[in-house]
Amino acid sequence: MTEIFLPDDRYFDPASRNVALHLYDQVKDLPLVCPHGHVDPRLFSDPNYQFGTPTELFIIPDHYIFRMLYAQGIALEDLAVPRADGGPVEQDHRKIWQLFADNFYLFRGTPTGIWLNYSFRNVFGITEKLTSDTAQSIYDQIADQLTKPEFRPRALFDQFNVEVLTTTDAATDSLEHHKAIQESGWKGNILPTFRPDAVVNLDTAGWHNHIKALGERVGKEINSYKVFIEALEDRRAFFKSMGATATDHAALSPYTTDLGDQQADVIFQRALRGEATAEDAAQFTGHMLMQMARMSVEDGLVMQLHPGSYRNHNKALFDRFGPDKGADIPVALEYTRNMLPLLSKYGSDPRYSLILFTLDETTYGREMAPLAGHYPAVKLGPPWWFFDSLNGMAYFFDKVMETAGIYNTAGFNDDTRAFTSIPARHDVWRRAAANWVAGLHVRGIVDEEDAEAMVHDLSYGLAKKAYKFA
Amino acid sequence: MTEIFLPDDRYFDPASRNVALHLYDQVKDLPLVCPHGHVDPRLFSDPNYQFGTPTELFIIPDHYIFRMLYAQGIALEDLAVPRADGGPVEQDHRKIWQLFADNFYLFRGTPTGIWLNYSFRNVFGITEKLTSDTAQSIYDQIADQLTKPEFRPRALFDQFNVEVLTTTDAATDSLEHHKAIQESGWKGNILPTFRPDAVVNLDTAGWHNHIKALGERVGKEINSYKVFIEALEDRRAFFKSMGATATDHAALSPYTTDLGDQQADVIFQRALRGEATAEDAAQFTGHMLMQMARMSVEDGLVMQLHPGSYRNHNKALFDRFGPDKGADIPVALEYTRNMLPLLSKYGSDPRYSLILFTLDETTYGREMAPLAGHYPAVKLGPPWWFFDSLNGMAYFFDKVMETAGIYNTAGFNDDTRAFTSIPARHDVWRRAAANWVAGLHVRGIVDEEDAEAMVHDLSYGLAKKAYKFA
Amino acid sequence: MTEIFLPDDRYFDPASRNVALHLYDQVKDLPLVCPHGHVDPRLFSDPNYQFGTPTELFIIPDHYIFRMLYAQGIALEDLAVPRADGGPVEQDHRKIWQLFADNFYLFRGTPTGIWLNYSFRNVFGITEKLTSDTAQSIYDQIADQLTKPEFRPRALFDQFNVEVLTTTDAATDSLEHHKAIQESGWKGNILPTFRPDAVVNLDTAGWHNHIKALGERVGKEINSYKVFIEALEDRRAFFKSMGATATDHAALSPYTTDLGDQQADVIFQRALRGEATAEDAAQFTGHMLMQMARMSVEDGLVMQLHPGSYRNHNKALFDRFGPDKGADIPVALEYTRNMLPLLSKYGSDPRYSLILFTLDETTYGREMAPLAGHYPAVKLGPPWWFFDSLNGMAYFFDKVMETAGIYNTAGFNDDTRAFTSIPARHDVWRRAAANWVAGLHVRGIVDEEDAEAMVHDLSYGLAKKAYKFA
Repeated sequence: MTEIFLPDDRYFDPASRNVALHLYDQVKDLPLVCPHGHVDPRLFSDPNYQFGTPTELFIIPDHYIFRMLYAQGIALEDLAVPRADGGPVEQDHRKIWQLFADNFYLFRGTPTGIWLNYSFRNVFGITEKLTSDTAQSIYDQIADQLTKPEFRPRALFDQFNVEVLTTTDAATDSLEHHKAIQESGWKGNILPTFRPDAVVNLDTAGWHNHIKALGERVGKEINSYKVFIEALEDRRAFFKSMGATATDHAALSPYTTDLGDQQADVIFQRALRGEATAEDAAQFTGHMLMQMARMSVEDGLVMQLHPGSYRNHNKALFDRFGPDKGADIPVALEYTRNMLPLLSKYGSDPRYSLILFTLDETTYGREMAPLAGHYPAVKLGPPWWFFDSLNGMAYFFDKVMETAGIYNTAGFNDDTRAFTSIPARHDVWRRAAANWVAGLHVRGIVDEEDAEAMVHDLSYGLAKKAYKFA
Repeated sequence: MTEIFLPDDRYFDPASRNVALHLYDQVKDLPLVCPHGHVDPRLFSDPNYQFGTPTELFIIPDHYIFRMLYAQGIALEDLAVPRADGGPVEQDHRKIWQLFADNFYLFRGTPTGIWLNYSFRNVFGITEKLTSDTAQSIYDQIADQLTKPEFRPRALFDQFNVEVLTTTDAATDSLEHHKAIQESGWKGNILPTFRPDAVVNLDTAGWHNHIKALGERVGKEINSYKVFIEALEDRRAFFKSMGATATDHAALSPYTTDLGDQQADVIFQRALRGEATAEDAAQFTGHMLMQMARMSVEDGLVMQLHPGSYRNHNKALFDRFGPDKGADIPVALEYTRNMLPLLSKYGSDPRYSLILFTLDETTYGREMAPLAGHYPAVKLGPPWWFFDSLNGMAYFFDKVMETAGIYNTAGFNDDTRAFTSIPARHDVWRRAAANWVAGLHVRGIVDEEDAEAMVHDLSYGLAKKAYKFA
Repeated sequence: MTEIFLPDDRYFDPASRNVALHLYDQVKDLPLVCPHGHVDPRLFSDPNYQFGTPTELFIIPDHYIFRMLYAQGIALEDLAVPRADGGPVEQDHRKIWQLFADNFYLFRGTPTGIWLNYSFRNVFGITEKLTSDTAQSIYDQIADQLTKPEFRPRALFDQFNVEVLTTTDAATDSLEHHKAIQESGWKGNILPTFRPDAVVNLDTAGWHNHIKALGERVGKEINSYKVFIEALEDRRAFFKSMGATATDHAALSPYTTDLGDQQADVIFQRALRGEATAEDAAQFTGHMLMQMARMSVEDGLVMQLHPGSYRNHNKALFDRFGPDKGADIPVALEYTRNMLPLLSKYGSDPRYSLILFTLDETTYGREMAPLAGHYPAVKLGPPWWFFDSLNGMAYFFDKVMETAGIYNTAGFNDDTRAFTSIPARHDVWRRAAANWVAGLHVRGIVDEEDAEAMVHDLSYGLAKKAYKFA
């Protein structure tokens, strides 16, 4: 039997390992600040929530996992990924787990492999490496743990030492689960985040339904751009009253523009009539990003923007299984010209704060670091999605920090729906940060005093400050 | 006298050198799998083929070499590169060799320098470093070796331990040399590859002649798109019967589109009349890539696509010396949108296999790894051309593997017309792979068992599987 | 009290530190060759020039410094940056210095931090780290030094061991300070560089005034393209007579085109009438780059081109403070197609020399190294601006050198207006070069003899040769 390989000094360069370990030791037990993520608030509103089978916990909902199996020719049906038409998929969770274990070698050297091994060993106490031979025994062990009270989400929340966890919620969300959590007396700090993509991006599937739902939330028919804007302001105020400190915005491109109210309404009316073009949608999204900045100036919510994902690239797969099935592919991005209108208007306003993400690493040093190193409002979010990895972090540090300095960045966020992977993800970041700063120290770039302060800020302080957590 | 510098533990990071050496030792003697290259099959059809002078072997045919001398102001005429008009060039091969040796310092730190030193020492037994002083002595030693039977291509093929070597052949090629090899009784496994660029890309110089030749091969006049497609299918079947397992396609961009038969024929007819525009050519290439995918689904040939080279950038040089003179310059590439039509249609088909290359490293992590990490049909070829180097490989591993995993890549190929450089190129790859995996191991990312399997797969198994060699 | 952290073996990778130190020791005392910079020649024309207060020396004129403070919300007025309208700004230089010291932690891990610490300790003899507590004491020490004769620019020039320093001068400049220097009998080698951007780029603010000034310099009204060209030729000849060996050109894009004289004049006449469009300006700049190449072929001046900066991105800041306030943001660049006209015409001309820069690192390996590794005229300048840093240099070496070889690069230049930072900048380069070459040596890529030659050439020889300094 082979043991899971997670040495204590992992992810550190041998040449600066001792320095890195020393720095890491100072931050490894700090509380986790989780300002951007996709954990379902139901996990915490129901004190007795259970995760289901190991397959339900680790495989079926996680497109990081099943896309890798799909890429090797395994059908999503065989992994029990639900079909859009409700048609039959594999029901035997042990069989799926075996298939996963048989192919676990695919994750060698990947962040997903790292997170899984961490979760297996450090959350569930598994010691053997997952292989074809150990698959069923490990399934049994995890299944057994999941029945215990200490594996309920609230118990894990405390055990993980989470200081604050934010969810991501549609503009139309009732936040009923957040209300239930707040009213339950449980002390876990779970905050909503306002994400209005579905009503702001005119090309969203089911946009009319989302607009209708928005109208119902605010008690008005959304029949004009003016009412639409008022409804969004109304919802932001509600989210803020529920503890939100931030908004979140996806877009294919970081294009911004100010159409003016009249032209914005012309496009909005076309959309209401079902006549908006692709160009209308792009223009309107660019305009609404400016509006969201304007509202942030007024209400103080931190604005997050993460462009660059071409969603649902595999059309046949989308038709069969719907969105978020591991088929979103990045595109090249341009920030300098696209963000000029927004940044010229709001970028130096002390009331405004904008956290930028990217899926195009070429923009780190060329555009994002120079923007963050100039505009007071701009901070850079951590390496995102495919780049939430050891190499992704090392590259981010190397490309961004010399120009922006670490104090124009926003620390780490785990951006995950997989709650049990959260400690693993923060651990990778804290080790990567300690490793990077250790490299600076052993090469004579920062002294020990600065090194310790930097790792602390990267691990804890920067995220807390950037997201305005008290 | 200075010796050639090729220490046994070369290319390994000092901090993980012992681990890397251990991993490398396990793969260094594995047979060479060479699934993509440009060696002339004549080398093997004639059992008594001789390479000529050292200058004919190393300098005159190799644009990697002479472009570096040209960049420093040395005329190609002075290096005996043949002129398109057949005009006079330098005839004294010893003088050319001396000029090469005088400028050998230009190759310091370059892959070409590495390959040359390996070939000199490990293939030809030279021990002294090439300098102005040693030039003539080394010329003598190589010239002497080249007269010996053990330096005939077939003998070297065996000595190099080549398991399979593929050539690259025009759609119109008779494959007569492959036939001769197969009929000769010699056991060397030399397979053709179907590369139809010259008939598929309408802007190819001499396209009409290539179409005429294609017609002659299939015994029909190629007077319509329909006949053209049939001719290509016919030729693919012939190549397959001759042992081909793959096709190969160059394009300036990875743009794909489905024009439909009617529109394809309209453009094809314009081309036959000599009236096709640049836009016609781009559209037709994009359409034919889809057709090639369709044929691959049907006949099982693996499809290779390597876009991004702006050919013959230096117009005056092209007029004087023709193509392939070291003046091809890469351009930026976009895969996500360009390949959407092809991948949506064929990317999940279990019968289809597509190996993608790039000359734009920015696409590794942004587009190619996400595509390969999702679509079952897509595998990534190794770092290509300018990136077939130690840094190119290290960057490829770092940018691709975390997202795609190594099992969505296709191992190594040497892509060379310089037969005697083949062992050097595979040795660099095997060392680079061992070094990368050793880095993963000493940083606690993969255990020893996985590390050994990964280096074996990268060095041998992945290429064999991706190219469907039995 | 904490000491400034500048260990003797700084910036070297631990695993090859001894080799790097050995290589660095051989070049650290070589004279400084400074072929591209922005030091004001007045510093040297007046033998008694004084730098003013520490705040005037280090903060007020240096956008590398104040942009980082601005990015954290500190107003430029509070840093005494002069307003365009002459309005009031902070007058208390000690107070500004304190603010700078309070925020000096922002520069942790940045090249600016490195340069400042080097200047403090190695130029001014400060030993304590700059903090809130030490701010006033360090101010006193620097202020005291600045009163001494050995801190006059000419004395520092000798102490820094500068072999040659070039300035950057408008096409309309009288070069009176250069004349004064030459006539003064002082032996410092200060040469002008011809930078005609303000007259060549039609969209320059105040273009008509610059054209008028140009006419006054050459004693003709610039009323046609023909006269304009003659005036530029005239000025180039004057600069050359004053010792210039190079010209310098900025552009948003490296686009080149040959409009022909007639079309060039049509656009020029529109510009004279104040009717030129943005497209006119782009076309004219592209045309003038071709003209500048043509003139370089004729007069032998080395041509430098550094495209890619989107100037004055923050419009409100530009209106209030003018240009060069840390708000220039890079854009993506394309060289392969854009430079085709120029390189096809002049790129192989032995009389022509072109030094290319970039703000888009993605072009290093993809376009610039292949161009420099082919065209005899092309050399690559060092990593520029945001990339003039340890990571910027390491990345440049890794991306460029395998393809171009070091002998198609142009060594280092400091590109600074901060004269007292010049030794710091060259020291970083020499250490980075030694570190990179040491890495090649310990990994068995270059032998000791080659390693020593490479570091010497990178530190000294390449710049001297590329800029044709005798």
